[in-house]
Amino acid sequence: MRLSTGFWQTYKEVPADAEIPSHQLMMRAGLIHKTGSGLYSYLPFGYKAIRKVEQIIREEMDRAGAHEIHMSVVTPGELWKESGRWDAMGEQMLKIKDKGGRDLCLSPTNEEAVTDIFRKTIKSYKNLPVTLYQINTKFRDELRPRFGLMRGREFTMKDAYSFHVDKASLDEVYARLFKAYEAIFTRAGLEFSAVEADAGAMADKDQKTHEFQVIADTGEDEVIYCAKTGYAANIEKAQTKRAPLDFFKTENVVEEISTPDKQTIEEVCNFLEKPQHQSLKSLVYKSMIGDEEETLLILLLGDDTLNELKLEAHLKCDHLKAAVDSEIDHEGFVKGYIGPHKLSSKARIIFDSQIDLEAAYVAGANKIDLHFGNMIPKRDVENFDVADLRTACKGDLTLDGMGTVEVKRGIEVGHIFQLGDKYTKALGTTVLDNNGKTMSPLMGCYGIGVTRVVAAAVEQHHDEKGIIWPMSLAPFHVYYAEITKSEENKKLANDIYQQLLDAGVEVVFDDRKAGPGFKFKDADLLGLPIQLIFGERDFKKDGMLEIRIRRSGESIRVAPVDIVTKIKELIASTK
Amino acid sequence: MRLSTGFWQTYKEVPADAEIPSHQLMMRAGLIHKTGSGLYSYLPFGYKAIRKVEQIIREEMDRAGAHEIHMSVVTPGELWKESGRWDAMGEQMLKIKDKGGRDLCLSPTNEEAVTDIFRKTIKSYKNLPVTLYQINTKFRDELRPRFGLMRGREFTMKDAYSFHVDKASLDEVYARLFKAYEAIFTRAGLEFSAVEADAGAMADKDQKTHEFQVIADTGEDEVIYCAKTGYAANIEKAQTKRAPLDFFKTENVVEEISTPDKQTIEEVCNFLEKPQHQSLKSLVYKSMIGDEEETLLILLLGDDTLNELKLEAHLKCDHLKAAVDSEIDHEGFVKGYIGPHKLSSKARIIFDSQIDLEAAYVAGANKIDLHFGNMIPKRDVENFDVADLRTACKGDLTLDGMGTVEVKRGIEVGHIFQLGDKYTKALGTTVLDNNGKTMSPLMGCYGIGVTRVVAAAVEQHHDEKGIIWPMSLAPFHVYYAEITKSEENKKLANDIYQQLLDAGVEVVFDDRKAGPGFKFKDADLLGLPIQLIFGERDFKKDGMLEIRIRRSGESIRVAPVDIVTKIKELIASTK
Repeated sequence: MRLSTGFWQTYKEVPADAEIPSHQLMMRAGLIHKTGSGLYSYLPFGYKAIRKVEQIIREEMDRAGAHEIHMSVVTPGELWKESGRWDAMGEQMLKIKDKGGRDLCLSPTNEEAVTDIFRKTIKSYKNLPVTLYQINTKFRDELRPRFGLMRGREFTMKDAYSFHVDKASLDEVYARLFKAYEAIFTRAGLEFSAVEADAGAMADKDQKTHEFQVIADTGEDEVIYCAKTGYAANIEKAQTKRAPLDFFKTENVVEEISTPDKQTIEEVCNFLEKPQHQSLKSLVYKSMIGDEEETLLILLLGDDTLNELKLEAHLKCDHLKAAVDSEIDHEGFVKGYIGPHKLSSKARIIFDSQIDLEAAYVAGANKIDLHFGNMIPKRDVENFDVADLRTACKGDLTLDGMGTVEVKRGIEVGHIFQLGDKYTKALGTTVLDNNGKTMSPLMGCYGIGVTRVVAAAVEQHHDEKGIIWPMSLAPFHVYYAEITKSEENKKLANDIYQQLLDAGVEVVFDDRKAGPGFKFKDADLLGLPIQLIFGERDFKKDGMLEIRIRRSGESIRVAPVDIVTKIKELIASTK
Repeated sequence: MRLSTGFWQTYKEVPADAEIPSHQLMMRAGLIHKTGSGLYSYLPFGYKAIRKVEQIIREEMDRAGAHEIHMSVVTPGELWKESGRWDAMGEQMLKIKDKGGRDLCLSPTNEEAVTDIFRKTIKSYKNLPVTLYQINTKFRDELRPRFGLMRGREFTMKDAYSFHVDKASLDEVYARLFKAYEAIFTRAGLEFSAVEADAGAMADKDQKTHEFQVIADTGEDEVIYCAKTGYAANIEKAQTKRAPLDFFKTENVVEEISTPDKQTIEEVCNFLEKPQHQSLKSLVYKSMIGDEEETLLILLLGDDTLNELKLEAHLKCDHLKAAVDSEIDHEGFVKGYIGPHKLSSKARIIFDSQIDLEAAYVAGANKIDLHFGNMIPKRDVENFDVADLRTACKGDLTLDGMGTVEVKRGIEVGHIFQLGDKYTKALGTTVLDNNGKTMSPLMGCYGIGVTRVVAAAVEQHHDEKGIIWPMSLAPFHVYYAEITKSEENKKLANDIYQQLLDAGVEVVFDDRKAGPGFKFKDADLLGLPIQLIFGERDFKKDGMLEIRIRRSGESIRVAPVDIVTKIKELIASTK
């Protein structure tokens, strides 16, 4: 591709709304264009990188035995009403009425549509398992789209769906696609981690779900990771235990302690000169299951934080929220002095599992300016549950105690789920099993944010000058600049370009009328892995061209006759 | 691909809404699935054919120097308001309000969005001409979607847009893309015709536009075609002349003829024993330009038909409609007896250019039961224009008189336009020309209905048994069935499959547990160009397999050792 006839413009200015490097660099390098809020158009170089990701995905999905289809982007409301998600999907689903007054939506995901295709096509266990996938446009009406391709409203997604007669088959295909995902992200040149994820309140315990997180400081997710044991989980889901703690043991009775104006854990523990884990944090929540509301009193070690998703999953409730002041009052609690001992409230009490129930703690006394000391849960609190409710932290131990965990930030680029028979049941989809009985197939679903993969790659691979593409995603492998004046050298520069084309090299030829400084800046910003430079001045000295590796900055000089061979070598060996 | 683990089902029943062969066959062959009204999902074999078309288009567009981009499917209303098309596009544009109350639409086309990208990127004539294209999802909210992929609401389109400093550059790129289109449809194995098309009322006379029509009996368009001169045009636009006619010449004065109850041309001419072309057909129309309404009296030879699009283009009006009875009365005309002589109405009179103005005609006398005879336009009618307003017919002559035209039916698969500066002006898009002055670039736009190409190919290539894919669009090149029982032959059958895969042959292996009749029916319906059959009974006789050509029905027997070579030969030589 000759830049003199190309469609490309770079920019010095960073757009005001671009907060993270990938968004800034993709805009500055002329890879994407903002068509509207959360609506991006992909320009020639940007689209080439996206298509490279699509091709890697296609090859690995095909290798895993999945079949590619293409569902309509617009789906009829009827299908979503069959599954009950027309109302349940929330505001991210953009609903439309067509000219005939029928309900439609822009697909945010396609479980219903694919199940509709499946139920027409497959009638027998003999045709199972089967996995279908597509690479297609999705739309989610984010109220505050941001970060460019990272959280746009319209985006490209690979979504796959598998169908099974039994859990063993689902597990087998799930494992196969897990491997395919590892292959995809590895080929894409990404440092990533497959982590256990939260399947939502309604999922069965034995339904697996994993996220594939690209490690990057700007990631929106937090990942708990243990290098020693390999344990990795989204912080929303991560189960760890505290490193050993010096709990306070005593048999003394509960004592009242005057704590005037000491309301926070920090204030109380400083005042009493106790470590925070020898106090209890008391939180009041309201949960709804159907129409039934329940008040909850949650106890955590004083320096721990509640993980609301764990609480929601434990309760299997429809809604959960922290109680507001008036609700706290109404229950007979005193804000700042809440505690589980001598309770007037009928709140259901749940202790976090990291609390030693036989140790003694400081906790609120439900009276203004008063705490209890020597409060031993097992002795002093009636009727409570225990559950894992705390948010995992850096320095925790894995549940088996074998390793210490760290926290990393991650960008979720893939998510795989075992869905069970939720959608096949809802859509009345059955097949005959090998006993001739009808059954609702189990499903798995498997997503990759295709456009987000490209943004994540830029997030992970850049420096202060610009992007550094992994070879596998680079829009072209080689950037080739000619900085010549004489007719003779111009001709030679063009001959070398033609030789590279003839050898099948993906090369951008910078034949624009511009100086070396301008060209090199553009080259570093665009970030193709290999740079080839025909500089007339140096060529006159040694008859050679320069090859630079964008990532390492290494530079070598190569004679024209060796260029094609050397470039092909470097393409094969550079990551 | 092994059918035993595939996702494929054929059907005997023709869906009730499938009226044309391509729709029927694509449903029956399991290529597409109806997800909703005008919303189709593409199943594995169907999607493979679509991707083949996409690849051909991509290669030829790249060869023509166009750059591939990908615009958002959802575009913001603001862009359409800038061009004035938010209101003008009509009901086919599906408009949406997002959660934030902003106007969006599903792109029916992308002139505005591409001009927005262009205006940000290109500032100088030095970077022109440039052509951008995309292959993407489009949506048009047809009230009555029909014919499967032929007229769906959601479809895949290749749309390209070129930008130029002058008409010469536009003409050059237009010609280059015209050639690219010929290459695309030729490679796709289609019998097609590039025809002059109607550019709409507002287009300048020198703005070219052509349609690419695939010839098929079920086509929705009529194409005028002259085998001798090569003239080809959509009937909406076609300009031809009548074959020589025996006009009636006389110098006699106008006479009144009593024609009681004779209102139609046919009735009057039968009654007077005159050929219909010796009478005039008088039509009353109303046109609007801005707020101004005008009444028109249109005269055609008695056996000709008005082409409303020609009339609209001639008037350059905003709206045009046939007058209703009350309007005809109000103007002082008498329905069934309208004519241009002795007119009380102030209607603007336009004669079709095929009328010999010096010949004598029968025409209505604007009185009940009365016609005029010997009415000579030049002598007896005041103040009239002449324009080409008639619909071309089979048997007409080309304008140069060199050939006779026929009418064929066509499926429009491509349409290319010269747009002028309409969109660049509306969106305030300028570049500096080579004198340093700002100018609004000229644009061309170039569409191909990608999914419609596949339907058109099926329309043109099928027989009573099913589809007959052109090699270039076939989902796979070879259908290979094994009908064996012995372990030994099963193994050999599998070995041959592996040999074909290793040789890079696109082969579907029908290893399903099913009888030969079942498999052959499926094979003919699916229509892959080459069929390879391992029938155990025949193999025992001569040690050979059968190769059948789907299109010709030819059959040969080939020894296992020769199969790969023979199959590769046939793939290269079969169309």
